[in-house]
Amino acid sequence: MAGLQVCSVLVTGANQGIGLGLVRHFLGMPNPPKWVFAACQDPKGQRAQELQNLASKHPNLVIIPLEVTDPASIKAAAARVGEHLGGSGLNLLINNAGIMKLNSLDNETLEDMTQVYTTNTIGPLLLGQAFLPLLKKAAQGSPSSALSCSKAAIINMSSSGGSIEEVYLWNYGQAVSYRCSKAALNMLTKCQSLGYRQHGVLCVALHPGWVQTDMGGAGSQKVGVSPWQVPQSPCADFPWEGRELLP
Amino acid sequence: MAGLQVCSVLVTGANQGIGLGLVRHFLGMPNPPKWVFAACQDPKGQRAQELQNLASKHPNLVIIPLEVTDPASIKAAAARVGEHLGGSGLNLLINNAGIMKLNSLDNETLEDMTQVYTTNTIGPLLLGQAFLPLLKKAAQGSPSSALSCSKAAIINMSSSGGSIEEVYLWNYGQAVSYRCSKAALNMLTKCQSLGYRQHGVLCVALHPGWVQTDMGGAGSQKVGVSPWQVPQSPCADFPWEGRELLP
Repeated sequence: MAGLQVCSVLVTGANQGIGLGLVRHFLGMPNPPKWVFAACQDPKGQRAQELQNLASKHPNLVIIPLEVTDPASIKAAAARVGEHLGGSGLNLLINNAGIMKLNSLDNETLEDMTQVYTTNTIGPLLLGQAFLPLLKKAAQGSPSSALSCSKAAIINMSSSGGSIEEVYLWNYGQAVSYRCSKAALNMLTKCQSLGYRQHGVLCVALHPGWVQTDMGGAGSQKVGVSPWQVPQSPCADFPWEGRELLP
Repeated sequence: MAGLQVCSVLVTGANQGIGLGLVRHFLGMPNPPKWVFAACQDPKGQRAQELQNLASKHPNLVIIPLEVTDPASIKAAAARVGEHLGGSGLNLLINNAGIMKLNSLDNETLEDMTQVYTTNTIGPLLLGQAFLPLLKKAAQGSPSSALSCSKAAIINMSSSGGSIEEVYLWNYGQAVSYRCSKAALNMLTKCQSLGYRQHGVLCVALHPGWVQTDMGGAGSQKVGVSPWQVPQSPCADFPWEGRELLP
């Protein structure tokens, strides 16, 4: 964390859980970003109440409406962020928004497979495309030649549940659609890392652990300290306790 | 190949390419299956002409209409196969049907990501669900206690293009949607292997190599002999030259 210096960051799914925790972390840094963009589906709704409270105290927090399954919404969000940034670029895109359904092999459906994949995998692809110009601009404006989160990066929030080798927590409802979407997200991240490296954009997937959130539920474990309190990070200068999966 | 003895096999996407090659292989075995079910989208169409020719010569070949993206079509196919089998089970389900789009990171779309995933990943899930009762019946009727293709198995046709480590042929058009779908298919296969083992059903994913077919295109390489001529197999008794990816 000590090494992380970002002027701007966008977090998707920022109104709750890990996303909200990350927003709180960035706002509380000794040297906070000039812009923290918190994207969520319904910025004025009841479920964004905490985000609204934070925004009233932190003028550098901007809430952005975003539906990650809708290409038009993604493009509109990128345009809005670009307006706020003026001529500057975006340092960090954190694709955190995601859903999980505890479907087993027996009761998994076409509809749920499609919905989970669209949110967890296609969304991060489309967000990468839409924000690439701003990420490239940040990379071009950085004095560092090395890839880093302080320069320009895409962080895809994955899971060891998407590791074919580990199949983390298989007995926790199987969650076939979720696992398939996260395995695909890991592959997408690898593709992004191969394709965007030339533009100076770091692309990594992270496993945050089983965190106590709405999604994590009652069975989740708070391992060590919460992610936004961790002083060391496995992913260069990214403030996260989870394991780096890729590249 | 020498050890393979199946009474019944179903191949999806059987009217061309690898699927048609597999059908030819099974029909040409010294001890051919009692039933070879060749599933394709339009059994009476021009693109199934070779399959129709084969069926006129081989009474054990049954052409089954199947759209792998349509749950109702899958259920109808399972019912039809069940009728042919009478009280017997199905030994082998080969999920071969698949599509590829040479989209790059830049021009990949929500629509193509969805279509490729539905065909390459969701289809094999739904086919596994629909044919599980027949596969279980075959497993129960087998004298062998060990898992094998001769007893009851699901073979998912994957690709090293879906290997996150290898990213096989990255420069061949990137094919992001295809890679993500195959990485997800590998995960699905792992889930099926964990879930269906208790029923005596072997589940594996195979990389067939870059074969000279419509999909493989002009750049494909015919490595060694064609897959349905190979006498040895890496996947127990399955007649295939490709590498076994899972489990």
